[in-house]
Amino acid sequence: MNTDQPLSFLSQCPIPIDRYPMITMAHGGGGRLMNQLIEQMFAQTFQNSYLLQKHDSAVLPVPTKKIAMTTDTYTVSPLFFPGGDIGTLAVYGTVNDLAMSGATPAYLSLGFILEEGLPMEILWRVVQSIQKAAANAGVAIVTGDTKVVERGKGDGIYINSSGVGFIEHDLTIQPTSVKPGDSILINGDVGRHGMAIMAQRDGLRFESEMDSDCAPLHTLVRKLIDEKIQIHMLRDLTRGGLVSALHEISQVCGRQISIEESKVPVEEAVVGACEILGFDPLYVANEGKLVCIVAKEEAQKALAVMRNHEQGTGSQIIGQVQEAARIEVVSKNQMGSLRVLDLLSGEQLPRIC
Amino acid sequence: MNTDQPLSFLSQCPIPIDRYPMITMAHGGGGRLMNQLIEQMFAQTFQNSYLLQKHDSAVLPVPTKKIAMTTDTYTVSPLFFPGGDIGTLAVYGTVNDLAMSGATPAYLSLGFILEEGLPMEILWRVVQSIQKAAANAGVAIVTGDTKVVERGKGDGIYINSSGVGFIEHDLTIQPTSVKPGDSILINGDVGRHGMAIMAQRDGLRFESEMDSDCAPLHTLVRKLIDEKIQIHMLRDLTRGGLVSALHEISQVCGRQISIEESKVPVEEAVVGACEILGFDPLYVANEGKLVCIVAKEEAQKALAVMRNHEQGTGSQIIGQVQEAARIEVVSKNQMGSLRVLDLLSGEQLPRIC
Repeated sequence: MNTDQPLSFLSQCPIPIDRYPMITMAHGGGGRLMNQLIEQMFAQTFQNSYLLQKHDSAVLPVPTKKIAMTTDTYTVSPLFFPGGDIGTLAVYGTVNDLAMSGATPAYLSLGFILEEGLPMEILWRVVQSIQKAAANAGVAIVTGDTKVVERGKGDGIYINSSGVGFIEHDLTIQPTSVKPGDSILINGDVGRHGMAIMAQRDGLRFESEMDSDCAPLHTLVRKLIDEKIQIHMLRDLTRGGLVSALHEISQVCGRQISIEESKVPVEEAVVGACEILGFDPLYVANEGKLVCIVAKEEAQKALAVMRNHEQGTGSQIIGQVQEAARIEVVSKNQMGSLRVLDLLSGEQLPRIC
Repeated sequence: MNTDQPLSFLSQCPIPIDRYPMITMAHGGGGRLMNQLIEQMFAQTFQNSYLLQKHDSAVLPVPTKKIAMTTDTYTVSPLFFPGGDIGTLAVYGTVNDLAMSGATPAYLSLGFILEEGLPMEILWRVVQSIQKAAANAGVAIVTGDTKVVERGKGDGIYINSSGVGFIEHDLTIQPTSVKPGDSILINGDVGRHGMAIMAQRDGLRFESEMDSDCAPLHTLVRKLIDEKIQIHMLRDLTRGGLVSALHEISQVCGRQISIEESKVPVEEAVVGACEILGFDPLYVANEGKLVCIVAKEEAQKALAVMRNHEQGTGSQIIGQVQEAARIEVVSKNQMGSLRVLDLLSGEQLPRIC
């Protein structure tokens, strides 16, 4: 658990923690305690005009003819880790899924599954993180739901966040738009989120601490669109990391994808941790990284735009889409030899997001 | 578990159950098994043009300037019960939350939390139920997410479904629109969903089996709107039942609400089960019931419209909004004496939805 909260933190909790120190089944039962939790903790913290409707569904204005919609459930363990927590993830992860369609994220919903016995203090910390991340990303929490499950039927907190964003561009950003010859760009180094969690989970200490890269990517995408880059495809690199994302794209567009491993940025601490724990950074989860696929002629311009954004200072052109009609991801090392990067058959890092 | 599936049911499962008999951590790890689950089971069963985009978020047309958005997580135990299962609930519950804003439900997302060891057969049954319910309600499953948690960190299946609907009317259907003198209508008998689950959970047998009332309510609402009923407020009666819903409305509009208990329909089997198990049907969960609040002058017309719809044949005018500026729900019995219907302080029926 992160301990960098100010001392006044607990006294600010709108629910008196000394009287209600933990979540009970009654907090999910539809009665007075659930009412108190929703009104005093959630509604007060996330307050906005949509939540004030206090209705089963929120009525929301939509200024565009198209929206993006997404959902993600967060089951990360541990709940707090260097660089973020489950609350930060629940906002930025969903914001990023919307951004991958080039949408401007607008509305989020929150669905909590709380385990009986969860300390109220933990919930309060997570709720505060959600509020900060939502404010930072410029999205409103417009509706929510809370369920409580018996001890041993959950793991503290699971959060679903679903999102709606506005689509104001005419691009078709999806895997089927990818064409042979296209260039593949990445916005920075890979593997930090997954290794930060693993280090925390195993109680390992490394010389330089690895922070999760958890960050919102929608303003980076927005900048690319504003600069008239004809984006073919965007994908954020979460579970399964870079290779799994490229595999999914190869599967849909039906072309081989090649990357140059030496071009993929990886921090030294991540390389070291991966060696010790037996992981390949190309398969490790990120929460603030994307690949952007554009026509080769646009690659340099896109790279310049990305490097000029705070979420893209470490951007690189890492590979390209090949002519070969094969569902395959390959990597070329510095000696020029190829290796096939298989989709992992099993788990690499469960409960990472 | 319901056993009325045809014999060919298991052989239709797109994932060979003899080879993959249960969910493993790898089904949530971002690799090949997760890919198989998503592509072969979810995408094939729910297929539509939005899912075919195979992207992090779905791009969706919106023909109206306003949408309704809602979220609900389903943790019901047991997963299967007379009259429905967690899949049916996940569709109709969310459809109903959209309908309470007078929206036409259009798009649903699904977020699964699967427990390691869950039999693949159970998941397949639930997925089939979702598909049937979605087809019946005319909504598309446009995006989804799957997480797997270790044994003992879940309870088989939890499902979040979030929804978006189109708002094509100019009514302001929310608690603040409720006015003194307004009439309160209900579309049928209360308490069946909660008692069906309780009976199943406790293995009780009653003379006449109680089925959950789980049903979509959006066409009933649509009919009221089409018939130009000036609806002030709608609320579906889930956790906490009729009394809790009326309390929430009283809290926001700041007026006392009175009902005549004898007018609230309750099936005999539900009355009996409630007596045995010690519940009050006015507080028991429903999944196909709503209250509709309209001006007194419109009550008879609204009642006629509701009774003429298959989800409203048992409709009744059950009470009214009082002048008294008190947050309170009271009931009048046949002798004319009043009793205050308190909001329950704790749980009545946990894990009912």
